[in-house]
Amino acid sequence: MNRKAVIRSLGIVLLCEAGFMIPSLVIALYFKDGDALSFLLTIGLLILIGGLLSLVRPGKTGLYARDGLAIVSLGWLAMSFFGAMPFFLSGAIPKPVDALFESVSGFTTTGASILTVIEGMPRGILFWRSFTHWIGGMGVLLLTLAILPLAGAGAVHILRAESPGPSPGKLVPRLAATAKILYLLYIALTLAQVIALLLAGMSLFDALIHAFGTAGTGGFSNRNLSVGAYASLPVNLIISVFMLLFGVSFSLHYQALKGNWRVYLKDEELRFYLTLVVASVALITWDVWRHQIMAPGASLEHAFFQVSSIITTTGYSTVDFNTWPTLSKSVLILLMFIGASAGSTGGGIKCIRILMMFKMIRREMTRMKHPQIVQGIRVSKVTVEQDILGATTLFILFYLVILVFAVFIVAAESADLVTGFTAVLACLSNIGPGLEMVGPASNYSAFSPHSKLILSLCMLIGRLEIMPVVLLALPSFWRRVSH
Amino acid sequence: MNRKAVIRSLGIVLLCEAGFMIPSLVIALYFKDGDALSFLLTIGLLILIGGLLSLVRPGKTGLYARDGLAIVSLGWLAMSFFGAMPFFLSGAIPKPVDALFESVSGFTTTGASILTVIEGMPRGILFWRSFTHWIGGMGVLLLTLAILPLAGAGAVHILRAESPGPSPGKLVPRLAATAKILYLLYIALTLAQVIALLLAGMSLFDALIHAFGTAGTGGFSNRNLSVGAYASLPVNLIISVFMLLFGVSFSLHYQALKGNWRVYLKDEELRFYLTLVVASVALITWDVWRHQIMAPGASLEHAFFQVSSIITTTGYSTVDFNTWPTLSKSVLILLMFIGASAGSTGGGIKCIRILMMFKMIRREMTRMKHPQIVQGIRVSKVTVEQDILGATTLFILFYLVILVFAVFIVAAESADLVTGFTAVLACLSNIGPGLEMVGPASNYSAFSPHSKLILSLCMLIGRLEIMPVVLLALPSFWRRVSH
Repeated sequence: MNRKAVIRSLGIVLLCEAGFMIPSLVIALYFKDGDALSFLLTIGLLILIGGLLSLVRPGKTGLYARDGLAIVSLGWLAMSFFGAMPFFLSGAIPKPVDALFESVSGFTTTGASILTVIEGMPRGILFWRSFTHWIGGMGVLLLTLAILPLAGAGAVHILRAESPGPSPGKLVPRLAATAKILYLLYIALTLAQVIALLLAGMSLFDALIHAFGTAGTGGFSNRNLSVGAYASLPVNLIISVFMLLFGVSFSLHYQALKGNWRVYLKDEELRFYLTLVVASVALITWDVWRHQIMAPGASLEHAFFQVSSIITTTGYSTVDFNTWPTLSKSVLILLMFIGASAGSTGGGIKCIRILMMFKMIRREMTRMKHPQIVQGIRVSKVTVEQDILGATTLFILFYLVILVFAVFIVAAESADLVTGFTAVLACLSNIGPGLEMVGPASNYSAFSPHSKLILSLCMLIGRLEIMPVVLLALPSFWRRVSH
Repeated sequence: MNRKAVIRSLGIVLLCEAGFMIPSLVIALYFKDGDALSFLLTIGLLILIGGLLSLVRPGKTGLYARDGLAIVSLGWLAMSFFGAMPFFLSGAIPKPVDALFESVSGFTTTGASILTVIEGMPRGILFWRSFTHWIGGMGVLLLTLAILPLAGAGAVHILRAESPGPSPGKLVPRLAATAKILYLLYIALTLAQVIALLLAGMSLFDALIHAFGTAGTGGFSNRNLSVGAYASLPVNLIISVFMLLFGVSFSLHYQALKGNWRVYLKDEELRFYLTLVVASVALITWDVWRHQIMAPGASLEHAFFQVSSIITTTGYSTVDFNTWPTLSKSVLILLMFIGASAGSTGGGIKCIRILMMFKMIRREMTRMKHPQIVQGIRVSKVTVEQDILGATTLFILFYLVILVFAVFIVAAESADLVTGFTAVLACLSNIGPGLEMVGPASNYSAFSPHSKLILSLCMLIGRLEIMPVVLLALPSFWRRVSH
């Protein structure tokens, strides 16, 4: 392992975080809610520690796969730790574990909150809370790569370790250029949503908060009732559509912007994702309507919003879907597992993995009937390598194993099975709200500190797609061995 | 497909079923509860139809994989259909769908019941209900193979399609001899349990009923309170230990009987299975005790019984574990997924598959750190082929996919998530009781006919390990193609 390069990279990440905090500091100074000092202190600390670490000169320049994993996992831990400081120092969140939970929830774009009353919090703090979604959505280290030539030859290992999906690809040959393109697209889409929300009558501050939460598929709101507080059809539609847009692979958006619109039609993952959305909206609309909970129009509106929110793992809500009938809740739980497209800002297992799984099952059925037939598996007309297929099934299973282990720890203090299970699932898939005691009308404040830490760990595991976080915990990962 | 051979095999299966029904007829004649005529009629019908079908002479003699799958799936459907007739004809279960549910539940060794009051039913009916467990546990077609030289060259395809586990092996070179050995062992273990239960003070009738339910890992009792009705420590211990014995691979028992006792120590699946039992018993004992539900001794006794019952997918209960705390219920739900050992009479995903999954996950972690290292996966010191590993992960995922689809159908009429989910899981894993409305103190009578059919299908899918049942539903399976 190239330890010096890892340490230096961490330093650069912390310096970047100091920079990311400046907008929140400006907001805090402008609104004078008494939170400016907490940002100043944290920024000072970040510059000091980040500056010292970044002075380390790596002897070797190249990075290996292990180094990429270490930089990403340690980087995210460090970011979350320092990101929690303003919450704690300003007194907005008095308990350190709660502040850390909120910060991890922000960066991992989960949106699970321990806050019981959100309205009335200092606005700099609310801005920072939502801004972490925006940074975490596209990736902290990707942003670093876009700004600084961080690691040279092995930087692709950092991209691989941080970006979701079975095969994160470079859009253009140079990595820094790919990172820049992705962030420019991300900024453009976010701005488009801010403008749309302003046109729908939202204030600039609220529009920024909700655009950050949508873009990162995070879900923090500055309103206690989440998006439901606006009770506005245009707002609901704008946010629904943008959530779905941010749940699509950015390389598709990039190719479409370059003029190749037909990628949207040809991409099998996108078709699968949209089919899921349409089918789920239809099922929930019917279920909510037949139980006479809402009129057909309202059923459709809120089913569309909730499905978009959950499949993209955003977690905004317009109604308390915990009061919906069993079938509707089952659909939402399934979507919590599946999640958004690979290469988007969304979490979950990802549509492409589920799609590959179905294709593998179909192939296995053919093999049972005709053992001698050998078939390849193709997604969007490209044959998928056997290694990726194997890694995909194992990823899904590992995801479920982690879910089960975490459920056991949290279940020991949960009042009911659904609360414990959906709390873990909503954190692992980076959604935010679950059902029952962690439903959209509730929050995570009731859990004990050790459950909050486990849930925070689940968020990191989910956002970084398991391996970087899990390997970090193994002593063998840190052993000095030759490659 | 060798259609004539399939039809002839089905005829022989029905003739065998007529034979299996004779003990129940004798019991019915002896106790004179008014159910003898229903058995006589069914036996007559079975002889007539079975006799006619078995007259079909297959042109070709060999069987292919597809034929084996078809014989097993159609055979189980036909057995279940005619097995339901005594329930219906005797008036014990007035609705045909309910009678079919009870029969499928019996043969698949699920033990889920639609009966609200069991005590007072005609004793011939109760005997038949439990005897289906005993036949279904080791396998209907295996028994046929032991008695009749059913299919010649391709009979191994029948064994493969019916027997649980990734690689059902022959114990001795000749298939019919293997089948005989397995059944002799099965009879001997069942008799041992009957004697033990008699010594513990049970009546002969009750001892037979509970030995059948234990041997087949079924779970039907002739008492409303299941095994809890006896409130006897010796009975609880005897049944706990025999459940665990029947949940172990029979080829291990066979090798041990031949003098090679050390196979028990060397077998990794057995170690995994016993580790799970010990850990689960410890966790539940602690959880039940800390919630002051029972004294430590009683906690241990009932935790041991319930864990043995659920991991072996038997489904007997001594207490209403639905009232246990969340952690204990979570442990039981996990065991419902895992199930017993391959090659035993138990259901579920099977320990060996879970074990292989963990080994594959560990290998994937190594591969993330050191992409160039290639490792094989060994179970009990034998390297597992890549094909089997791939099929194993897909089996687990397919199991979960079927679970999800069935939950959706059942959830549409379920009052809560836990009822719908555990009902499907308890049927798919051939356990019987789930939680909440299908907990050990309740039954499946409240479900609508279409949910009962879906749950019956889940039981068959679980018992026959997915493929035989799923392929049956595909039109392409029946197409006349050359192999």
